[in-house]
Amino acid sequence: MLWTRKDLLDLQSLSVEEITAVLDTARAFRAVGERTIKKVPALRGKTVINLFIEPSTRTRISFELAAQRLSADVINFTAEASSLKKGETLKDTARNLEALNADFIIIRHSAAGAPHFLARVLNAHVVNAGDGAHEHPTQGLLDIFTMREKKGSLQGLRVTILGDILYSRVARSNIWALRKMGAHITLCGPPTLVPRIFEQMECRVTSDLEEAIADADVINLLRIQHERQRKTMFPSLAEYSSLFGINRARLAATKPDVLIMHPGPINRGVEVDSEVADGERSVILEQVTNGLAIRMAALYLVNGGQAASTETPEQAAA
Amino acid sequence: MLWTRKDLLDLQSLSVEEITAVLDTARAFRAVGERTIKKVPALRGKTVINLFIEPSTRTRISFELAAQRLSADVINFTAEASSLKKGETLKDTARNLEALNADFIIIRHSAAGAPHFLARVLNAHVVNAGDGAHEHPTQGLLDIFTMREKKGSLQGLRVTILGDILYSRVARSNIWALRKMGAHITLCGPPTLVPRIFEQMECRVTSDLEEAIADADVINLLRIQHERQRKTMFPSLAEYSSLFGINRARLAATKPDVLIMHPGPINRGVEVDSEVADGERSVILEQVTNGLAIRMAALYLVNGGQAASTETPEQAAA
Amino acid sequence: MLWTRKDLLDLQSLSVEEITAVLDTARAFRAVGERTIKKVPALRGKTVINLFIEPSTRTRISFELAAQRLSADVINFTAEASSLKKGETLKDTARNLEALNADFIIIRHSAAGAPHFLARVLNAHVVNAGDGAHEHPTQGLLDIFTMREKKGSLQGLRVTILGDILYSRVARSNIWALRKMGAHITLCGPPTLVPRIFEQMECRVTSDLEEAIADADVINLLRIQHERQRKTMFPSLAEYSSLFGINRARLAATKPDVLIMHPGPINRGVEVDSEVADGERSVILEQVTNGLAIRMAALYLVNGGQAASTETPEQAAA
Repeated sequence: MLWTRKDLLDLQSLSVEEITAVLDTARAFRAVGERTIKKVPALRGKTVINLFIEPSTRTRISFELAAQRLSADVINFTAEASSLKKGETLKDTARNLEALNADFIIIRHSAAGAPHFLARVLNAHVVNAGDGAHEHPTQGLLDIFTMREKKGSLQGLRVTILGDILYSRVARSNIWALRKMGAHITLCGPPTLVPRIFEQMECRVTSDLEEAIADADVINLLRIQHERQRKTMFPSLAEYSSLFGINRARLAATKPDVLIMHPGPINRGVEVDSEVADGERSVILEQVTNGLAIRMAALYLVNGGQAASTETPEQAAA
Repeated sequence: MLWTRKDLLDLQSLSVEEITAVLDTARAFRAVGERTIKKVPALRGKTVINLFIEPSTRTRISFELAAQRLSADVINFTAEASSLKKGETLKDTARNLEALNADFIIIRHSAAGAPHFLARVLNAHVVNAGDGAHEHPTQGLLDIFTMREKKGSLQGLRVTILGDILYSRVARSNIWALRKMGAHITLCGPPTLVPRIFEQMECRVTSDLEEAIADADVINLLRIQHERQRKTMFPSLAEYSSLFGINRARLAATKPDVLIMHPGPINRGVEVDSEVADGERSVILEQVTNGLAIRMAALYLVNGGQAASTETPEQAAA
Repeated sequence: MLWTRKDLLDLQSLSVEEITAVLDTARAFRAVGERTIKKVPALRGKTVINLFIEPSTRTRISFELAAQRLSADVINFTAEASSLKKGETLKDTARNLEALNADFIIIRHSAAGAPHFLARVLNAHVVNAGDGAHEHPTQGLLDIFTMREKKGSLQGLRVTILGDILYSRVARSNIWALRKMGAHITLCGPPTLVPRIFEQMECRVTSDLEEAIADADVINLLRIQHERQRKTMFPSLAEYSSLFGINRARLAATKPDVLIMHPGPINRGVEVDSEVADGERSVILEQVTNGLAIRMAALYLVNGGQAASTETPEQAAA
C-alpha cells in the first residue's frame, strides 16, 4: 500500500499509485454496503466532524454514512448553527474541534484552499469535501472509480466533461486524476465557460457538442448551478439545454457503450433528459453508491490504513 | 405472524391481523424502554433515513429513538437543509438515498400519497410519518395501542374524535383502524370541519359536544393547528375552546373511566384545560411512550420480523 | 464518592466534596480522549437529549461527544426546529422527551432557573448547559479543573476574572466554585459591568486593570458578547480593547507563570491579542479538552456513578 498522507486535500498532488490505492480500497469497502450488517469496526471509537461551512446535504450524508459504516462517531457542524456567526475564525473553530479530540475533519468551504490551511495547522486528518472552485477530490475519485469498474481501465479512455468547466471543482478534480491515469479528456460547453487555457492541462477544448461526444467512452455532465450562476456569462437554461443538453437524439450519435455520468442532483431537462438519465447507459445512481465506498476508503487510508497495520482493506472490510 | 408487507403506508389497507401483529409486537418492544440498557440488536448495521420534507421534531425524534434502540444507524434529512431546494425531485432524492444503501426511508411530506409513490419506486422499506391530510399510520396505531392496553379490547369500544376532522390525517388513520377493530366512532367539531360525508365511513357525525362525549369510553382530541388553519372555516381559538374545549365541567359529564387522549403538542386552554390534560384520566404522555414502541415494531416488521426468522418479537426484544 | 444528586444545576449549591468528586472523576475520564478507541461503555443504552433553546454549537458538540464517548445515544433538539414554535411550553416539551424514556436532558435556555424547574418535574437527570445570566456549571468546573491541573491546588490561588461580570453566567459559576475551593477572586472590567455588589460574594472589585492582573495566578477572560451587548452600558469594542484587552505589554506586567484562560470563542484583538491567546501562557485549548472530560464526569455522576456500584471512575474509564 502506497498511502502515507495524513490528509486527502486534492487530486492534483496525488500519484498514480496513491489514486490506485484509493480505488482498490474502495472496491473492498463497496461490498460492505451490500451486506445485511453494513458495518466494520475499522474506526470504532474515532470521532469524525463534518464541518460544512457551505451547505450540502448529499455530500454530508455520504460522509456521515461512510463514517458510521466504519463504526466511527460523527458530529455535524454546519455554518448556520455555528459560532462562526459570532466572528470566530475558521482556524479557531478547527482548533477547538481538534481540542475535542476530533480525529477527522471533513470540510466543505466556499474558499479554495481552506482544507489545505486546516491540514497544516491541525494534527487531525483533514478531508476536502469541496473547496470553492478548486477541487472536490472524493467526487473525482468516485467518478474515475465508476469509470474503471465499468470500463476495466482508465488508460486511453476518452472522457468528455460537459458544462461549466471554468467554475467547477468537480471538473478540476476529474481532469487532474484522469490525466494522471492516462485518459484522454475533452472539455465542452459555452465558450465563456470553457476557455482555451484548459488546453494547457492537456485537454481538448471545444464548443462543438457533436465533436465532443461522437467518440467519447464516457460523458460526464456537470450540474448547472443556475441558482448561483454568473448571470452575464451564462446562457438561459432553455438555451443551455438546447445547445448542450443530452437527449435521446444526441445519445444516438454516441458510441453504443458510452457511460452517462452526473454528480447530481440532476436538473432534468437541462443537462440531461429523463429518458437518458434513467436509461441503460446512465450510471448516475451507481456513482452515489460508489461515492460512499470512496469516502470509506479515504477515511480508512488517511487514518493509516494498512500502513499502520498488516491488515488489508479486504480484512478491514471483513 | 401475519406481516409480509415491505412498507407501512396507511391503515386503510391493513387487515385486522396485520394491525394486531403491530400491536402485539409493540407490546414486546415497549419493555425495552424500561430497561437500564434500552437497546436490542435487531437492526444492527441497518441504515434508517428520516426524510422530513415537512418539519416535525417530535415525530422525527420518536422514529430516531426507535431506530437507535433497534441498533440501527440514523441519518436525518430535512427539507430546509436539502438539495430539494436546488430543484431536485422527491423521486431523485429518494433514489439517491437508496443508492447510499438506505434500508429504511421514514417520510413525512405535505403531499398525500408521497410515501406510496416512494414505496413503488424503491426497494428500501418506506414508513409513512404523515402525508398531507391523508394518513399518519404510526400515530393511529399508537392511539389504538394505548386504548387496547387501557381498555383490554377495542371491540365495541366507543371512541369520540374531537376537532378538525376534515383536514386531519390523525383522524383518518384512527377511523380506518378503529372501524376494522370493531370500535364505534363519533366525530365531533364545528360543522364546517366535520362534514356528514364521514357517515359513509360508518361514523356518527355530530356538532353536539354533550352528545358526543356522554357515552364515550375514549375522547381523542385533535390538535388545533391554529398557525396554519383555514381562516375562513375555523372559529377563533376562544370560540373553539368555549364550544369544544374539554374542561373539568365537561369531564364531569363523561363516563368516570373515560380516557383523554391527544397526539400532542397540546394547546393548553384550547383543546383541553391543564387540569384535564394533567389529570388522572389523561393518557397523553403514555401515548408518547407507546409511540416509540409502535415505531420500533413498525421498523422491525417491515424489515421482515419473524417472517424472516424463527425469532419472536419477545426474543428480538430480549 | 460523595455525589448523590440526580442533577447538575449550579455550582452555588455544591459542596467542596461534590466539586472535588467531579474534578477527580473528570481526570479519570480525560485519559479516554487520548486513546485510540475513545469510548467506554458506562452509559450504553442510555438516551441523552440535548435540549438547546438558545443556540450554542460548541457546548452542544462538547456534550454530544461526552455522551458518545460514554456510549450513550444522543438526540439533538433545538428550538429552531422544535414544536416550541407551535406554542408548546417548556414543561410539556420536557415531559414529552421524558416519556420517550430520555435518561438525561441537557438544557440550555435563556431563562435563569429553567434547568431547576425541569429537574423538579422530571425523573430524568437534568444538566444545566447555561441558563440566562445565572450559571453555566460545566464551564465553571472545566475552568477550575484546568486551574487545578496546572497549579496543583486551588487553595489560595489568585484568580482575576475580567470583562462583563454583571451579565455573565460563566463568571457566576466561577465565583461560586472558586470561593468554595479557597481561591481569592478579583473581578475587573468597566464599572457599569462590575458593580460593587459583588464584594458581598467575597470578591475584590476593581476597574484598575493593572492592579487586577499584577498578582494574579490566573486571568480568566470573559467573552465580550458584542452582538447582543447592552448598548448603553458597554463601551465600544475599540475602547474595551484599549482599556481591558490583554496584549503583550500587559502580559509583561503579570506573574511569569500566569495562566490565560477564556471560555471561547475568542474575539481576537478585543479581549485578547492573538500573540497572547496563542502564546505559552494560554491554556484556552486545554479548557476545551478538559470540558469534554468534565461533561463525561457530570453525566456519569448524575447517573449514579460509583454511588450505584463499586466501580471507580478509573474502572469506568477503563
